[in-house]
Amino acid sequence: MASRQFDLITLGTGAALPARGRYPTAQLLVIHGAPYLIDCGEGTQERLRSMGFPFHRIDHIFISHLHGDHYLGLMGLISTLHLMGRSRKLHVHGPAALKEIIDVQFRASQTYLRFPLEVQALEPENGRLAWSDSRVTVTLLALRHRIPCTGFVFEEKRALRSLRTERIAEIPNFMRAQIKRGEDMRLPDGTKVPNSALTHEPRPARRYAYCSDTAYAPELIPWIQDVDLLYHEATFTKQLAARAKETMHSTAEQAAMLARDAGARALLLGHFSSRYKSTGAVLEEARAVFPKAIASEEGKLYRVPERTTESS
Amino acid sequence: MASRQFDLITLGTGAALPARGRYPTAQLLVIHGAPYLIDCGEGTQERLRSMGFPFHRIDHIFISHLHGDHYLGLMGLISTLHLMGRSRKLHVHGPAALKEIIDVQFRASQTYLRFPLEVQALEPENGRLAWSDSRVTVTLLALRHRIPCTGFVFEEKRALRSLRTERIAEIPNFMRAQIKRGEDMRLPDGTKVPNSALTHEPRPARRYAYCSDTAYAPELIPWIQDVDLLYHEATFTKQLAARAKETMHSTAEQAAMLARDAGARALLLGHFSSRYKSTGAVLEEARAVFPKAIASEEGKLYRVPERTTESS
Repeated sequence: MASRQFDLITLGTGAALPARGRYPTAQLLVIHGAPYLIDCGEGTQERLRSMGFPFHRIDHIFISHLHGDHYLGLMGLISTLHLMGRSRKLHVHGPAALKEIIDVQFRASQTYLRFPLEVQALEPENGRLAWSDSRVTVTLLALRHRIPCTGFVFEEKRALRSLRTERIAEIPNFMRAQIKRGEDMRLPDGTKVPNSALTHEPRPARRYAYCSDTAYAPELIPWIQDVDLLYHEATFTKQLAARAKETMHSTAEQAAMLARDAGARALLLGHFSSRYKSTGAVLEEARAVFPKAIASEEGKLYRVPERTTESS
Repeated sequence: MASRQFDLITLGTGAALPARGRYPTAQLLVIHGAPYLIDCGEGTQERLRSMGFPFHRIDHIFISHLHGDHYLGLMGLISTLHLMGRSRKLHVHGPAALKEIIDVQFRASQTYLRFPLEVQALEPENGRLAWSDSRVTVTLLALRHRIPCTGFVFEEKRALRSLRTERIAEIPNFMRAQIKRGEDMRLPDGTKVPNSALTHEPRPARRYAYCSDTAYAPELIPWIQDVDLLYHEATFTKQLAARAKETMHSTAEQAAMLARDAGARALLLGHFSSRYKSTGAVLEEARAVFPKAIASEEGKLYRVPERTTESS
C-alpha cells in the first residue's frame, strides 16, 4: 500500500520584498507520495534542488495570483523540466493571464516544450472544483487581495474501507474490492449483509487550506471549517493593522481569528514582512487568539496526522 | 577623485540547466564605482543581497538574449527596486521582446512602477553604440546563437590628462581644465605651447568584452582586439564539439583560440555545462591554447589593472 502521508513543506516564508534569508512563497504539499507545488516564487527550483527533492515528479503547480513573489520561479522551473527531458504532462493551475506570460516568454526564447503543458485558468470562487485525481480533490477559495487571488483547499481521497478481520473468511475473494468500496454483500439466498457489518470506516479525509495573500476574509469560514491545517498569511502584526488594510494583507491576529472561528486543527503562519527580524512577535500575537499557531520555516516539513476514525 | 577601479564580479557561472551549486549567468561590472549588471539569471537579486551589494545603485542592466538562464531574474530585481522606493531611472538594454515580457507581467500584477524604466531594444550588430556616459561607452557584438544574441564591449572613459609637475606654475588656473582636456596653451603674445609639453598622456582606456552565448565566431576578432579582459562562454570541452556546434555554444578550446587571436590580455571562461563537476578539464583545454585563461567562480571579483601609460 502506498504511503498515506500528508506532508507540507514550506520552501519560502517571506513577503514581496525578500530579505532576512527568507525566500518568496512556495510550498510543496506531498499527498500519499505525490507532490503538489503551491506558488512558485523566484528561486523555487534552487530550493527544491538544494533539498534534494526529485522535482521532476511534480505534475501539478497551483499559482494563487500574479504578484511576482508568488510565481516568478515558474518559468525557470518549467525550462529546467524541459531540459531534463520531461515527457509527462505538466498541469499549471493559475490566473488567466499566466498563459500569456508563459507563451510570450517561450516565443521569445523559441522554446518548443517536449512535454504537454496544460495551463488551466482559475476563476476565484469559493468551493469551485479545480482538480481531482486518485489522491486529492482541490477546490478554490476567493481571497481578498489587490488583484484576483485564489486560495486552495486540498482534500485527500479517503482510503478504501478495510474488511473486519473476524468477517474476512465469509467474503468471497471476487467480492472484496466492491465491499471495500462500500457495497453491501448479497448472499446466494438473496439476503443482504450491510457493508457496515463487514468493514471498518476509513479514516476521515484530511484537508489543507492555503490562504495567501488576503485581507481578513471571514466569509471563507464555511469553506475551511474544521480543516486539519490552515496556512494563512500574517504579513503584519496588529500594530500595523492600517498598513495591512491598505495593502490587503492580514495581521497575525486576524489569521488566528480565522483559524479559531473555522475550528482549524492547526494554523501555519507565513508571508512575513521583511521588517520583522524574527517571527516571535507575529507568533505571540497569533497564539494569544489561537494557541495552535506555528510560524512557518524555510525547508521545514509539517506532517498532518491521520484523524482517528469516526466510527469503526 | 573617484576610484578608477575596473572590476568584474561573476554572480553565476552555470549554463541553462542549473546544477552543481552553479547559478545562471549574471555579472556585475563596476567601473569607477558605478555598477553595470550584465545578464540577470534567476536568483540574481538573492546573490547580490547575500554579497551585501547595494544593488539600488545599479542604473543599467544589459541583457544578452532571451534564454531564461540569462534574464529570468530581471522581473524580480525590478520589482524589488520598486518596493525599495526607487525613484531614479533604470535603463534596461536588451532584445526587443523584453519590453513586452516586462509589460505583460506588470500589467497582470497591476504594478505601476514609481521610477522611470527605459527599455532599450538592441539590434545585434558589431560596433553599434548602445550606451555612453561619463564612465563608459558600451558597444555591441553580434554573437552566433540559436536566437538573436548580443555581446557587449565596455570601454572606460579615459581620465583627463595630468599636468606636468614642472610646468604647473606656468599655467594660469583658469586654463587648467581645458589643458587637461587636451588643448594647447596660448600665451598673451600669441605663441602656442603644445599640450604634450604641458601634460602627461592619461592611461589607456581599459576594455571588457562579454561573449555569451555563442558558437565560435572569429569575425568578432577586430571588435575585441587587444581587450583587457575577454569573457567567453565555454559550455563544453572539445570532446563534445559536435554538441557545441548543434547547440551553438563554444568549446573551451574555441574560446581560447578567440582570445589568442584577438590578443586579449586575459580570458575568463564561464557558462559551464552541468555535466562538468569541476571546471578543471575546461580550464586545462583552454590553457593549452591561451595560458592566461581563468575559470570564473561564483561571487569572485576580477580586478582589471590599469595599463601602463603609452607615452608620458
